Amino acid sequence: MAIQHSSATSGATRPEIRRRILTGDRPTGRLHIGHYVGSLKNRVRLQNDYDCFFLVADYHMLTTRLDRLSEVEQNIRDMVLDYLSVGIEPERSTIYLQSLAPEVAELHLLFSMLVTANRLERMPTLKDMVRDLNVEVTYGLLGYPVLQAADILMVRAHLVPVGKDQESHLELTRQIAGRFNELFGEVFPLPDTLIGDVPTLVGTDGKAKMSKSLGNTIYLSDDAETVTQKVMRMYTDPTRLRATDPGHVEGNPVFSYLDAFDPDVTVVSELKERYRAGRVGDVEVKKRLAGSLNTFLEPFRERRAGFAARTGLVEEILREGSQRAREEARKTLAAAREAMRLNYFRG
Amino acid sequence: MAIQHSSATSGATRPEIRRRILTGDRPTGRLHIGHYVGSLKNRVRLQNDYDCFFLVADYHMLTTRLDRLSEVEQNIRDMVLDYLSVGIEPERSTIYLQSLAPEVAELHLLFSMLVTANRLERMPTLKDMVRDLNVEVTYGLLGYPVLQAADILMVRAHLVPVGKDQESHLELTRQIAGRFNELFGEVFPLPDTLIGDVPTLVGTDGKAKMSKSLGNTIYLSDDAETVTQKVMRMYTDPTRLRATDPGHVEGNPVFSYLDAFDPDVTVVSELKERYRAGRVGDVEVKKRLAGSLNTFLEPFRERRAGFAARTGLVEEILREGSQRAREEARKTLAAAREAMRLNYFRG
Repeated sequence: MAIQHSSATSGATRPEIRRRILTGDRPTGRLHIGHYVGSLKNRVRLQNDYDCFFLVADYHMLTTRLDRLSEVEQNIRDMVLDYLSVGIEPERSTIYLQSLAPEVAELHLLFSMLVTANRLERMPTLKDMVRDLNVEVTYGLLGYPVLQAADILMVRAHLVPVGKDQESHLELTRQIAGRFNELFGEVFPLPDTLIGDVPTLVGTDGKAKMSKSLGNTIYLSDDAETVTQKVMRMYTDPTRLRATDPGHVEGNPVFSYLDAFDPDVTVVSELKERYRAGRVGDVEVKKRLAGSLNTFLEPFRERRAGFAARTGLVEEILREGSQRAREEARKTLAAAREAMRLNYFRG
Repeated sequence: MAIQHSSATSGATRPEIRRRILTGDRPTGRLHIGHYVGSLKNRVRLQNDYDCFFLVADYHMLTTRLDRLSEVEQNIRDMVLDYLSVGIEPERSTIYLQSLAPEVAELHLLFSMLVTANRLERMPTLKDMVRDLNVEVTYGLLGYPVLQAADILMVRAHLVPVGKDQESHLELTRQIAGRFNELFGEVFPLPDTLIGDVPTLVGTDGKAKMSKSLGNTIYLSDDAETVTQKVMRMYTDPTRLRATDPGHVEGNPVFSYLDAFDPDVTVVSELKERYRAGRVGDVEVKKRLAGSLNTFLEPFRERRAGFAARTGLVEEILREGSQRAREEARKTLAAAREAMRLNYFRG
């Protein structure tokens, strides 16, 4: 995956061995192969060159999921096991839970004074949410990007891998950091956007995006039988009625998945040719895909089972990671308070 | 001072020996005799019957005073010394600093999901500020009443003494507490408003309110000479040119102050009569007032000097008080998290 550093606003950097990255997810449930292609694969690689912080953003669940908070704990467990199964290593990277490093709430409060309500009301992501989900704009939802800025600046990350839709949040983060530095002195690096050519994977129904709510996902933790069943039910080419009809490969999710997960390019290429010529049935192609996917997922499943069997492992990883994040948070808050001259009576 | 408990919304009460009160001030500077008449006098009495928390609200300074944060530390010291000098006793009551109990920021974040941005935009206090001070509405300023709700509910106060202008904030606090209880179960008492017949003291210039920014104040810590000078320059009755002219007592701040601070009702009454009849000069009345005020303030000054001489006393009081507030905050947050089912991974 090609990684480009946006060169727009390079902030104050520090003499550290490895530059720091922050990224994360809201704990909405188990991760799927779309997450893998879109971000996890990249994160696993980033561990080699960067000091990575992976945030499980449970506070962010509060903005839209107040009625489903009882699911959050299980979602967190699943998400951490998914991280581990794909190769995110707590020995090298920091996996932490937002609510276990509650200093972020304090930084969020400080930052809330540096951005106008109007600026937040104009965020395109908020407008999209209001339009698509018809949600009520709570004060907290309005401040979602401020909390995100606090997440990023709390660990003083240099780089944040984001999709196009989140670029406006990074821009706001830079604005808040810049405003702070301008008012009180240089404390925060202005984080750069790390834009990879992030591929998105269509859902099993051929819809634009794989998403839990659409029920068109294949989870990293699905067992072999489930994967095979889901593949056999996949949407292919609606114009093709018989195996002898010429078929379309483009826009056909079965072939998109083969491209993404089948390592044998020659075989996939031959299958495409036969499909176009009407010389192979959907069932054969799907069986090939089911096999490729299961071969691909099997090591993840094995690792996941191994991690899941270790009682208390997820807790331990989150506690240790959150401890490290808290140390960073304390340093950051101390620096921010000193700059603001609010570091009194702490002796 | 007559105290009425508003009976509108009596919340879930707990079996405690003394009901709890929270009130406080933004550390904007030394306190003046207007503060004494309007609130301090009442607070000193409330200590007899209630478990009082007195909050020095330094976070709240950030909403409008980002350019003057360097003054905050001295303001806090002055304010605590003023508290002590009038008889607020840290042995009986809890004096604490908002930023030393940063758990309030976490509660503020949780509460931010329970109130709409629209509701906050309609707060009359915000509208007044925008009109009077022409301030920019930052996200933090918009959320000022949410932070206040967190202050109050963090210590699960039953009663909050407020002036008329702050009643809308108490109403919002009750609404947030009620919404929380409704969604997640009974955690917060709905605090009652404690409305006294709060007298306001006009400024030395006869303007409606004593205020630092108007320069019409007499501070509790002013020395005798300063008090005398300020009194001798006071506004009296502009229609009266000579001591032999009949004078007006009503609306005359010199007589308002005599009513408030001179214990000898008979002498004051006689003075008023002579003033109305044009049989006493301003100078004599002012000299009487200067004497009365200094007699009244002298014990405060003495105590203040005693406290100020004890190095580290203010720090110690704030640290101990804030420690107690934090313990309350931790209990409250634990209960809130448990109710919200967010109490995971904390073992």
